[in-house]
Amino acid sequence: MELNKRQTEILEIVKEDGPITGEQIAVRLNLVRATIRPDLAILTMAGYLDARPRVGYFFSGKKPVKSLNDSINAMKVKDFQSRPVVVTEELSVYDAICQMFLEDVGTLFVVDKSSYLTGILSRKDLLRSCLGNNEIDKVPVHIIMTRMPNITYCNKSDTLLKAAGKMIDKQIDSLPVIIDKGTGLEVVGRITKTNITAAFLSLADDHEL
Amino acid sequence: MELNKRQTEILEIVKEDGPITGEQIAVRLNLVRATIRPDLAILTMAGYLDARPRVGYFFSGKKPVKSLNDSINAMKVKDFQSRPVVVTEELSVYDAICQMFLEDVGTLFVVDKSSYLTGILSRKDLLRSCLGNNEIDKVPVHIIMTRMPNITYCNKSDTLLKAAGKMIDKQIDSLPVIIDKGTGLEVVGRITKTNITAAFLSLADDHEL
Repeated sequence: MELNKRQTEILEIVKEDGPITGEQIAVRLNLVRATIRPDLAILTMAGYLDARPRVGYFFSGKKPVKSLNDSINAMKVKDFQSRPVVVTEELSVYDAICQMFLEDVGTLFVVDKSSYLTGILSRKDLLRSCLGNNEIDKVPVHIIMTRMPNITYCNKSDTLLKAAGKMIDKQIDSLPVIIDKGTGLEVVGRITKTNITAAFLSLADDHEL
Repeated sequence: MELNKRQTEILEIVKEDGPITGEQIAVRLNLVRATIRPDLAILTMAGYLDARPRVGYFFSGKKPVKSLNDSINAMKVKDFQSRPVVVTEELSVYDAICQMFLEDVGTLFVVDKSSYLTGILSRKDLLRSCLGNNEIDKVPVHIIMTRMPNITYCNKSDTLLKAAGKMIDKQIDSLPVIIDKGTGLEVVGRITKTNITAAFLSLADDHEL
């Protein structure tokens, strides 16, 4: 709910000088009491102001109910991202699986010698290569990884909503958060469906369910 | 924002008989126009009603801005759950991995002969057993599965929020949705972080970001 100019003014007056009566507020605005009655009703109903008989209006201190869109659009990738775990292209599939368990992540990012992103390894990729192969200690990950340009990524300043949309569209569990250096993509973070789930929970936390 | 009784009555009148003037609404309620002015202002600001000069108030048809809590609490497991994929306890780890790829799921539920839940297999469980073993076609899944009572589950009528909280707390990617039959748990669905991510997106879709 957007407040109009007069409601914002009333809110400022009550914040500074409350408790204050409706009559006094009207005088301050050079208006009659009846004119501001709807505004006071709206501010009270929306939770910005509290009113007490024979005392007047005072600032509730409660945060007013934020609109859903405002809350969701304010969530950015950089506020929810996790640390990325990167491996080199020559690492064996066996060692990559060990790394995945050690770091307890579902996705590893593969980088070249300049530390630029070249591939992605999911649990699914590693499981598939286990299944058909007994010599996973001899297979380097660059053979089995998903490679550029088939990697879907996001930026720190993207909304979490955009990142979530990409994961659902592409049916993937995680996105690298990158900085485009012109000569390549530097991996600076990781966004997963776990991050989105935590964000979903925080929407409720913020509003004290 | 909660509407009070009078505002709800006004909304009903406008829904049925709009466009209708403020004066006419007041008459219907046995009130004077000035009394309902704040209510009309609130209903208009909140988006329930539209007002047109010399025509009157009419029902906007737009859904009013729902509060975040209302929107999130209205999301139930049953509205977002996926189909469960179940396997039997004697299936080999190799066949379980094949099943996981065939069904394209991240978690399999293991059931006994009465079709009651006895275990869970994640990609992580299967990957771990691949790593230390060349004979996964000979190992039955009940050897490696996470088993009751260490399984976290949820019910169809639970809020999605509660399910999301369990997944974050227990650091798991999926929950079986069960019906407690007294003699055992029947698996009727599956809630994953993908479902939560889709729900997060739908919060925005509903409100046309």
